[in-house]
Amino acid sequence: MQQVGRLFLAIILLALTSVACTDEVPLDTDWRTPDPANLIVMQLVNGVVVIELAANFAPRNVANIKTLVREEYFDGLAIIRSQDNYVVQWADPTEEASEAKSIGSAAETVAPEFQRPSDEITIATIDSRDAYADVVGFADGFPAGSDGSHAWLTHCYGMVGVARGNATDSGNGTSLYVITGHAPRHLDRNITLAGRVLMGMELLSVLPRGPGPMGFYENADQYTSISSIRMGDKIDDQERIELEVMRTDTEAFSAYVKSRTFRNEEWFVEPTGRIGLCNISPPVRITD
Amino acid sequence: MQQVGRLFLAIILLALTSVACTDEVPLDTDWRTPDPANLIVMQLVNGVVVIELAANFAPRNVANIKTLVREEYFDGLAIIRSQDNYVVQWADPTEEASEAKSIGSAAETVAPEFQRPSDEITIATIDSRDAYADVVGFADGFPAGSDGSHAWLTHCYGMVGVARGNATDSGNGTSLYVITGHAPRHLDRNITLAGRVLMGMELLSVLPRGPGPMGFYENADQYTSISSIRMGDKIDDQERIELEVMRTDTEAFSAYVKSRTFRNEEWFVEPTGRIGLCNISPPVRITD
Repeated sequence: MQQVGRLFLAIILLALTSVACTDEVPLDTDWRTPDPANLIVMQLVNGVVVIELAANFAPRNVANIKTLVREEYFDGLAIIRSQDNYVVQWADPTEEASEAKSIGSAAETVAPEFQRPSDEITIATIDSRDAYADVVGFADGFPAGSDGSHAWLTHCYGMVGVARGNATDSGNGTSLYVITGHAPRHLDRNITLAGRVLMGMELLSVLPRGPGPMGFYENADQYTSISSIRMGDKIDDQERIELEVMRTDTEAFSAYVKSRTFRNEEWFVEPTGRIGLCNISPPVRITD
Repeated sequence: MQQVGRLFLAIILLALTSVACTDEVPLDTDWRTPDPANLIVMQLVNGVVVIELAANFAPRNVANIKTLVREEYFDGLAIIRSQDNYVVQWADPTEEASEAKSIGSAAETVAPEFQRPSDEITIATIDSRDAYADVVGFADGFPAGSDGSHAWLTHCYGMVGVARGNATDSGNGTSLYVITGHAPRHLDRNITLAGRVLMGMELLSVLPRGPGPMGFYENADQYTSISSIRMGDKIDDQERIELEVMRTDTEAFSAYVKSRTFRNEEWFVEPTGRIGLCNISPPVRITD
């Protein structure tokens, strides 16, 4: 008996725990097509990463990122950092400041958008006891928190931020980072979040960790080159990837969150009855 | 000006946010040398992974894992699964049940150790509002939660569990998984956690995600072979990696947690004042 079904066992192990189950199939109106003018599409040597920009939450930073993308600033730049359980980050890797790529008509500095008055952001709240925020939920599909007076986007897996130095306006979108590990929520309200990866996380999350301090690569041959980043509305029809994202302000999404909170699949002996904000990722589907 | 210091900016971006800062340097007595009899050392083609077993929390499962290791069960097996933002998992990949590797004198089934009466586990608590547990902290260096009547280890990044099927005793340690993404805390109390990766996470976390459902690889050439897993006390002196782990029941550790809770480095504009359990990882240092 001991040899029976070991692989089969392995196949089913943990299986149920990672599948989203909802009692009802969401209606088509429970999904939205992201505005292509808010999508940026990064072409890496091994695939495509699609990011939705948080235009409502961080309009100034998003506008500057769009300027950089439209003027093809990122083409030929590189991923210069991969720190385990933390972030990947890209930037102009040029060593000599005098040879760095021009940022064209983009701004050198952008006023920070770390948080906003809470009455400017509508959060579809979820029932969760959160370590960092009094109230949590989703705003326009992005994870968000609030303390009642201010609201902010939160550093969940796949969120995209505008790297900065010590000056709060020193980030301008020329260097962006993506969360690839357990949510570093202490960054919330300290740096501008400007988007979320909708597709291609598995290309970024597996990049070899950089051997230098904080995961920076130490040599150019360790970089991953960025072939291009293009606006979603500038992608040729035949190359465009048609995506839909589950809306987060619907009854269907509430049912989805509930199904993730109370795990009634046969595998579970303890249905939990609890949920963490960053344990929910609004589903994305390809409709091509 | 716009070309000045772009790389320098990139280098310092986010830099301070990932470095642990304590006001005091911990004393040597604030560190412990893990018992080599509770360490297992996995040799992969590209490096070594060291796991500390949670012998106090999960003695039955740990004993069976040790039997498997001593009898060299894992040698030549493979990592068969890498699911993005979730787990890597290894097992006997043999397709034919009749050809599966013998588990020798190890048990085919092991009674689950999902949680224990809370009076059996001493948790050095931290001040954190946790989504899943009323009280959280660390027990013997492992992240843990409690509801006052029971205590359990928690699925933070790097924790190692005993995969199982639907039967709660169907896990026996022949297939183990490691958390490589945001903490899937809904697994707490549903499956036995038996250890924590002390070294080598960056080898596991970058494994290409499996193309099959739930990140399973679909072909043998996608597997990562496990050359061997050996008990820490069976490693030759010259090959042994001397590690120390920061104790989690000391004032020094409390100071460390406090430094992660109140971020006073210059980079921060909002010191947070909050902390999540899985945002703390007891530090490990190599003393070779």
